[in-house]
Amino acid sequence: MANYPSWIEEKDEVLWLTEDDREHLQISYRLKKVIFSEQSPIQHVMIVESDDFGRMLVLDGVVQTTAMDGYIYNEMITHVPLQLHPNPKNVLIIGGGDCGAAREATKYPSLTQIDMVEIDELVVKACKEHLQEVSGNLHDPRVNFIFTDGLAFVQEKEDAYDVIIVDSSDPVGPAEALFEYDFYQNLHKALKKDGILVCQSQSPIFQQAIVKQTRTHFEKLFTDTKTYTAIVPTYPGGMWSFTIGTKGNPIEPGRVHFKNVDTNYFNQGVFESCFTLPEFLKRLVPNH
Amino acid sequence: MANYPSWIEEKDEVLWLTEDDREHLQISYRLKKVIFSEQSPIQHVMIVESDDFGRMLVLDGVVQTTAMDGYIYNEMITHVPLQLHPNPKNVLIIGGGDCGAAREATKYPSLTQIDMVEIDELVVKACKEHLQEVSGNLHDPRVNFIFTDGLAFVQEKEDAYDVIIVDSSDPVGPAEALFEYDFYQNLHKALKKDGILVCQSQSPIFQQAIVKQTRTHFEKLFTDTKTYTAIVPTYPGGMWSFTIGTKGNPIEPGRVHFKNVDTNYFNQGVFESCFTLPEFLKRLVPNH
Repeated sequence: MANYPSWIEEKDEVLWLTEDDREHLQISYRLKKVIFSEQSPIQHVMIVESDDFGRMLVLDGVVQTTAMDGYIYNEMITHVPLQLHPNPKNVLIIGGGDCGAAREATKYPSLTQIDMVEIDELVVKACKEHLQEVSGNLHDPRVNFIFTDGLAFVQEKEDAYDVIIVDSSDPVGPAEALFEYDFYQNLHKALKKDGILVCQSQSPIFQQAIVKQTRTHFEKLFTDTKTYTAIVPTYPGGMWSFTIGTKGNPIEPGRVHFKNVDTNYFNQGVFESCFTLPEFLKRLVPNH
Repeated sequence: MANYPSWIEEKDEVLWLTEDDREHLQISYRLKKVIFSEQSPIQHVMIVESDDFGRMLVLDGVVQTTAMDGYIYNEMITHVPLQLHPNPKNVLIIGGGDCGAAREATKYPSLTQIDMVEIDELVVKACKEHLQEVSGNLHDPRVNFIFTDGLAFVQEKEDAYDVIIVDSSDPVGPAEALFEYDFYQNLHKALKKDGILVCQSQSPIFQQAIVKQTRTHFEKLFTDTKTYTAIVPTYPGGMWSFTIGTKGNPIEPGRVHFKNVDTNYFNQGVFESCFTLPEFLKRLVPNH
């Protein structure tokens, strides 16, 4: 066997990837093969081919996105803000190394500039080459890849973007600061006067403190804030939360002129109903 | 170590339950202890205490419901039909051995009779004694436990129930016949003239053939049929489907007089939006 990291194991001539990020729950994926495996200055980056979910991006041994269901998360983090904004011209994506959010953004003809700031160039390289089910093999000239720290990048920006999408990984290690108030303050400043910010805000089942904290931070900054959810089959808990804030008009998806867009999960009905929260979540973060 | 079945393993003095129902994906739950473990004539029945999900019902080594999230499935299979029916008097539950559906049904004062037909008495006994987070320790005199085969039971019934809920396990082994047309035909006959039938119809991600087949069977029998979904964190894929058919008025949750009910997931917003399907599911089973 090749020299794989500790989360890859061979049993009876079959490779298994075992996620070890949760102490009390172990998920093991049977693999067909390892496509790409390299250490970047930031983290260990792998693309593997699994039996059940097709190709998967694995960072430091944790599955980030899969060919089978990656589109759900990427459509939901991208189309909701781009539909809410009446006429988005430019968008900033922070993180999103799998390139799925950038790919979804290219579906809007009104956009002239899609800046994607990702700290780890190797993730983008791996996904563009080996995970095209998610990245879509981006050749769109509107997409600018900027390989730097998102935190430093937004500090320099003011009144610059119509929409900002923060597609971070879990709030441990490199992504921790992407869940703090100072960062959101800088993002608010980087937005134009009608700008919209959306962040992934973790699992409403397992990380309610993050869901609540993100909502509280947003409410201090934006004229209107809401929480919405989507199903993400390969994330623990199956449900994911996003927090969205606007400097302009209130968030009223039913009053927006819906822009036609080719998708596999998102549609006008999902757009309008994703803000309807189950009872336990309504108690935590009521959408007014 | 006690004499546990093969899906329980001890590693470094810690018990782990490993689900082996899927060939390419293994989920292992770290356990605090095994509460109950017995073989019935039908299947092996366990109640275990897990670290992440609290107590869980495990049948033949497969997790069926958990203290942490069991309420979501049970609320969604029970409240949707009981809200849609204008004045339900009696309800039949087929399966539902964890007693969660019966418990939710007792929240409707209009109901005078809640018949629960479960093939395996040991499941009910185990859940009533050791899984009260889900079963609620049912003492309501309106609940009649009938321990027999649901298939044979409904063959004898005609024009008898306002609402029938089929809360089956996966369509393998004992539950296989609960997904066949003949069974739905008998259920249709067992319903009163404005009656409503709801069945769990498996994962919209992993079992699309069952979702489609159930819908097609229903459409042959009922005046109106729809598919709805809920999040079920501990089922693979995170999302679950239910198929509902009515002999009476069309299914229009927005036009129903909503009955107040104490819940943790279900509410009026969820009731109205659960029929809004993501794009890939809308293509499979459009809700008209």
